[in-house]
Amino acid sequence: MVLRLSTLFLRTLREDPADAEVASHRLLVRAGYIRRAAPGIYTWLPLGLAVLHRVEQIIREEMASIGAQEVHFPALLPKEPYEATNRWTEYGDSIFRLKDRKDGDYLLAPTHEEMFTLLVKDLYSSYKDLPLSLYQIQNKYRDEARPRAGLLRGREFIMKDSYSFDVDDAGLDASYAAHREAYLRIFARLGLEVVPVKATAGAMGGSKSEEFLHPTEIGEDTFVRSAGGYAANVEAVTTVVPAPIDYSNAPAAQVLDTPETPTIDTLVAASQTVFPNPERPWTGADTLKNVVLAVKLPTGEKQLVVIGVPGDRAVDLKRVEANIGAFLPIAGEIGIEAASEEDLRSQPLIVKGYLGPGLEPEDALLGLDGKSGLLYLVDPRVVPGTRWITGANQPGKHVYGLVAGRDFGWDGVIECTEVREGDEAPDGSGPLETARGIEMGHIFQLGRKYAEALELKVLDANGKQVTVTMGSYGIGVTRAVAALAESNHDERGLVWPRAVAPADVHVVAVGRGEEIFAEAERLAGELESRGLTVMLDDRPKVSPGVKFGDAELIGVPTIVAVGNGLASGTLEVKDRRSGSTEDVPVGDAADYVVRAVRADA
Amino acid sequence: MVLRLSTLFLRTLREDPADAEVASHRLLVRAGYIRRAAPGIYTWLPLGLAVLHRVEQIIREEMASIGAQEVHFPALLPKEPYEATNRWTEYGDSIFRLKDRKDGDYLLAPTHEEMFTLLVKDLYSSYKDLPLSLYQIQNKYRDEARPRAGLLRGREFIMKDSYSFDVDDAGLDASYAAHREAYLRIFARLGLEVVPVKATAGAMGGSKSEEFLHPTEIGEDTFVRSAGGYAANVEAVTTVVPAPIDYSNAPAAQVLDTPETPTIDTLVAASQTVFPNPERPWTGADTLKNVVLAVKLPTGEKQLVVIGVPGDRAVDLKRVEANIGAFLPIAGEIGIEAASEEDLRSQPLIVKGYLGPGLEPEDALLGLDGKSGLLYLVDPRVVPGTRWITGANQPGKHVYGLVAGRDFGWDGVIECTEVREGDEAPDGSGPLETARGIEMGHIFQLGRKYAEALELKVLDANGKQVTVTMGSYGIGVTRAVAALAESNHDERGLVWPRAVAPADVHVVAVGRGEEIFAEAERLAGELESRGLTVMLDDRPKVSPGVKFGDAELIGVPTIVAVGNGLASGTLEVKDRRSGSTEDVPVGDAADYVVRAVRADA
Repeated sequence: MVLRLSTLFLRTLREDPADAEVASHRLLVRAGYIRRAAPGIYTWLPLGLAVLHRVEQIIREEMASIGAQEVHFPALLPKEPYEATNRWTEYGDSIFRLKDRKDGDYLLAPTHEEMFTLLVKDLYSSYKDLPLSLYQIQNKYRDEARPRAGLLRGREFIMKDSYSFDVDDAGLDASYAAHREAYLRIFARLGLEVVPVKATAGAMGGSKSEEFLHPTEIGEDTFVRSAGGYAANVEAVTTVVPAPIDYSNAPAAQVLDTPETPTIDTLVAASQTVFPNPERPWTGADTLKNVVLAVKLPTGEKQLVVIGVPGDRAVDLKRVEANIGAFLPIAGEIGIEAASEEDLRSQPLIVKGYLGPGLEPEDALLGLDGKSGLLYLVDPRVVPGTRWITGANQPGKHVYGLVAGRDFGWDGVIECTEVREGDEAPDGSGPLETARGIEMGHIFQLGRKYAEALELKVLDANGKQVTVTMGSYGIGVTRAVAALAESNHDERGLVWPRAVAPADVHVVAVGRGEEIFAEAERLAGELESRGLTVMLDDRPKVSPGVKFGDAELIGVPTIVAVGNGLASGTLEVKDRRSGSTEDVPVGDAADYVVRAVRADA
Repeated sequence: MVLRLSTLFLRTLREDPADAEVASHRLLVRAGYIRRAAPGIYTWLPLGLAVLHRVEQIIREEMASIGAQEVHFPALLPKEPYEATNRWTEYGDSIFRLKDRKDGDYLLAPTHEEMFTLLVKDLYSSYKDLPLSLYQIQNKYRDEARPRAGLLRGREFIMKDSYSFDVDDAGLDASYAAHREAYLRIFARLGLEVVPVKATAGAMGGSKSEEFLHPTEIGEDTFVRSAGGYAANVEAVTTVVPAPIDYSNAPAAQVLDTPETPTIDTLVAASQTVFPNPERPWTGADTLKNVVLAVKLPTGEKQLVVIGVPGDRAVDLKRVEANIGAFLPIAGEIGIEAASEEDLRSQPLIVKGYLGPGLEPEDALLGLDGKSGLLYLVDPRVVPGTRWITGANQPGKHVYGLVAGRDFGWDGVIECTEVREGDEAPDGSGPLETARGIEMGHIFQLGRKYAEALELKVLDANGKQVTVTMGSYGIGVTRAVAALAESNHDERGLVWPRAVAPADVHVVAVGRGEEIFAEAERLAGELESRGLTVMLDDRPKVSPGVKFGDAELIGVPTIVAVGNGLASGTLEVKDRRSGSTEDVPVGDAADYVVRAVRADA
C-alpha cells in the first residue's frame, strides 16, 4: 500500500493543542493521528487508525495463541445484569446511564463481566466444555471526573477484555498464567516496557490480581519495586509485620499530663521529659496516631472510621480506599477524606489532638464495641505486645505504655500508611524504590463472585453442580497507542517502533525536478511490490523543510529522501530513531530499506 | 486456520428462539452466530464475527478502490453539532440521549454528517484539498420504536458510512457516481441481489438519493419497478402529470343538491342523475376528495392540513410524510395521521363529507389565504383546467365543474396518493409492479445543507470562499449479514455464499475409528496449509446425525465427510447449496476441495 501525502487526509499542525498536557497527546494531535471530539472522546484519523489496527492485530494473534476466542458484545446494555451483581449501584457516577423510549434503564458498559458470565451460562453446562477463554476488542465507556492526557484517560476508549472460565482453582491458575504470558508477549511485540505489579482487586472483586504498568513519569499510578524483583502498586504493598512481643511483664499504662501537645512533634518533644525512655529518645514511631476519616459510602451516606498508625507514618488515603472495603457494610465505589470539623462535632467523646483507643476493659472508646461505636482499624505494625504513647481522650493528657492486645483492641488490621522509599519489600528482596507508571493491562482472578451472583454452574465429572471460577483480563488498546507515543518521541516528533508504525518507510521527493518525483514514485512502487507499506510525500509545491519536518513529526522509522543526490546516483536513507543517515546507490535502495525493515521485525 | 468444534465456543440449538419472526434471525441464533442481549441489541459469537469481518473486509477494499480513506468517530457525541443542524430536535424519540456527570447533553450517534463536516472544516481550507471521501465502519444507535427481525432492524448496529466533499456540483456528481458503482460491486461480491431505487431524502435533506434494496418478501420497504428498468421506493415515485387543459370555454361551476352523499361512492352514484356526463358515466376519478390530516410537528404541536386528491385514489400517509416537509414551518421527524373528530371540531368551517376548496375569489375556504387558513396541497393530477366534482362546504351539496386554476388554487403540489400496480412509470418505461425489499444501502446527494449550517467553506481557484457540497453514503453492515442469511438458507439451515462463509470447508469426522479422526486431522491440516479456513468437527462422542445436522445448519459451502468410505479409500464431498455429493479418492480430496473453493471465488 502507498499512502500519498498529496491526497492523504492529513494536516500536520505547527501549534500544540491548548489542552495537551503530555507529549503523546500533543504529538498525536499535531501529527494528524487523532482529533478531540469532546472531553476524553477522540476521533481517529487515517494514520491513527493504521497504528490502532496494528496494535489490535498483535493482540488478536497473541489471544489466539492461548486459545482465546473472539466475540463481540454490545456497548449499550440493559441494567438488569449489572443489578444482579450490584455494580449498577457500585459504579456510582462513573458510568454513563441512559433510558430508552420505553423508560428502560441502560448503561454504556465500562466492562463486561456480567454479560460474559451470562453468555457462558446460556450455552455451556458441563465441565467438559471448560476451560474456556473468550475476548473482545470493543469500545468501553467511563464517565471520568477528569478525563486527561488525551488517550491516556478517556471517556470512550477501546479495550481488549477477556474472561476465563474454569471448573476449579487449578484451572483458573492455569488460565491466569496463560494470559499473563500472553500479555508479556503482547507488550514485548509492541515494544512497550511494562512491569507486572501486584495489585488490589478494587471494585472488580476477586483475589489475585496484577497490573502491567508502563513506567513513565507522567503515569498516574505510583508503584514500588525492589532490586530483588518485587513490584506492587502502592495500594497493594504489604507491610513487613513485626513479630508479637511478649507483654506478660509489661508495666501498667499510665496517664500523664502533656499540656499543649496536640501534634506528634509536640508530643514527642514533651515525652522526653514527661516520661523519658531510659534506652533512647522517643520518636514518632513510638506514638500511636489515631486519625478520624470520613468514608463516603455508595449510598451517599458518610461513615466515620478511626485509623491507628505509628505517629511517624502518614495515612495514605488511596491505600485506605483500596483496602477498607472488607470492613464496610456495603460494597461499591467509595470516597475517603479526613473528617471535617462538622463530622467531629457529631462525636462529643472525641477530644481533638488527644484521641486514643481508651483503656480496656472499662474505658474502651474506639472500636465497634467501644463507647464511641466507631470502627477502629490499625496499621499492621500494631501487633500484640507493642507499647504506645497515645491520646488519653482528655485535653492535655496522653497515656504511656499502652500495650496493644492487653490495654486495647481493634476491629481489624488495614494496609493504610504511606509506603516510603527504603521500606523493606515484604518478600525480603530488598528496600523499595518508588516509580510512576501507566496501567496498560490488568489481570484478575475473579474467582466465583460473578458466577455466584449470576448462577453460572456446570456439572462436574461426578454429575454435581459446581460454580465456575473466572478470571478477567484487560488491555487498554487506545491507551497503548498513547503510551507508545509517550515513550517513543523526541523534540522533533514521534518515533514509532516498527511493529506499530503507520508505514514501514516514508519516501520524500525533495526538490522540483521531474526525475526526482519519478524516482520517488518508482521506489515507492518497488517497495510496495515487496510487501511494505509506503508513505510517499509526493506533494508538488511543498518545501524540503516542511516535508522533512512532517516526516520527523509523523515518525515512520525509515525515511528515504529522493533529492539532488539523484544526479550522482544516490538517495539518502535516514533512521528516524538514531538520526543516522546514509547515502545509498539508487539501485541498492530498495534492498537496503527492506533489510532495515526486516531487521527490526 | 482450523476451527475445531471440540473447542469452538458454539452450541447449536434445536429450538427456534421464541421471538424470531424471520428465517435469518431464527437460523443465526440457532446456528450459534449471534445471541440477543436486549431488544434490538445482539452479541456476536465467533462464527458471526467471522462472517461480519469478511463483509467488512469486502467493504474496505471497495472503499479503498474509489480512494475513500478510513477514519473512526466516537459513538458518544456532544449535543452541540447536532443542534447546529437542528437534528438534535428533529430526531425526536428516535435517538438515545444521555447526560454526563457535569449535566452535559450527549447522544449516541445515529449518523455522523455533522462530525465529518466539522472535521473537514477543521483540517481543510482550499479547493486543492478536494475532492475527498472519508468513511468509517462503526456502531450506530437508533432507539427504534419496534426493533424487529433480529439484525434487520436493531438498536445498536454497524454501518459503513462515507461522506464526500466537493467544491462544485459536478464534483458531487462524480463522487456520488463512484460510490454508486462501489456499492454495486460490494453487493455483487457479497452475493447479495440489490435493486437501486430512487428515494426521497427524508430527514437527511439534500436532493438526489437512491436506496439499494434487497428484494425479499419480509422487507419493510415497498418499492415499484417497471419492466423497462425504472425503480423507486413508494415514497419517491413521481406521478405522470397530465398536461394542463385549456379552460377558456369552460362553463361556470354550479352548486347542486346531493343529499346523503358523504362518501365518494355515494357521490358518484348520485352524480349520474344530478349532473349526468353526456360522454360517459362519472367515476371516482372525476371527484376531488379533500382529506384533513393532522401533522405532528417535531415540537409536539399538531398542524392540520388538507390534501386534495382524485376520489379514486387513497392518500398514502407514508408518501405524505416523506414529501410534506417542504411545506412545513419546521424541519424534523413528523407524524401524520387522519384528523380526529376533536381536531375537526376546532375547524367550524369544515363540513364533514362535503369539504371542498370553495369558489374563488369570494368563497375560497382551503389554503393559507382561504377562510380556514389551512394549508391546502393537491395531488399532481390536479393540473390547471381539470374539472372536478367536489364538496360545496354545505351539508348535502356538491359543486360540479369546478375548474382547477380558475375556481380554486392551492398552496402546493405533493406526491401523496397510493401507487398502484399498473400505474405508468414516470419515465415511460412501462407499467409499475410493486415488490418488497430491505434497505441495504442509501446514497444521498446532501448538497450544501450541512456545509452551510456548519460553515464548511474552502477557497476556490479565484481565492473566493465557496461552500463545499457533500454526499453521504451508508451500508448496513450487520444488516447485510442478516440479509445474506435471509436469502441463503433452506429448511436445514444456512447456505453461505463463499465470499462471506465463516470457513471455506467443513471437515466432519464421522464414526469412531481412530484412523477416521487421524485422516480428518490430516486433511484439515493440509487444507489449512493451502490457505483455507477449515472447520473441523473433531468432537469424539457425537453421533453422525448430529454432526451432519450441525454442518447443514452452520452452512459452510463445502462439507467433507471422513467416514467408513475411508476403508475403500474415499471421502464424501458435499456441496451444501446443491446438495450434490461425490466420493473422492483420499489422495485427491485436498485438490478437489481447493478447486471447489477457488471456482466460486
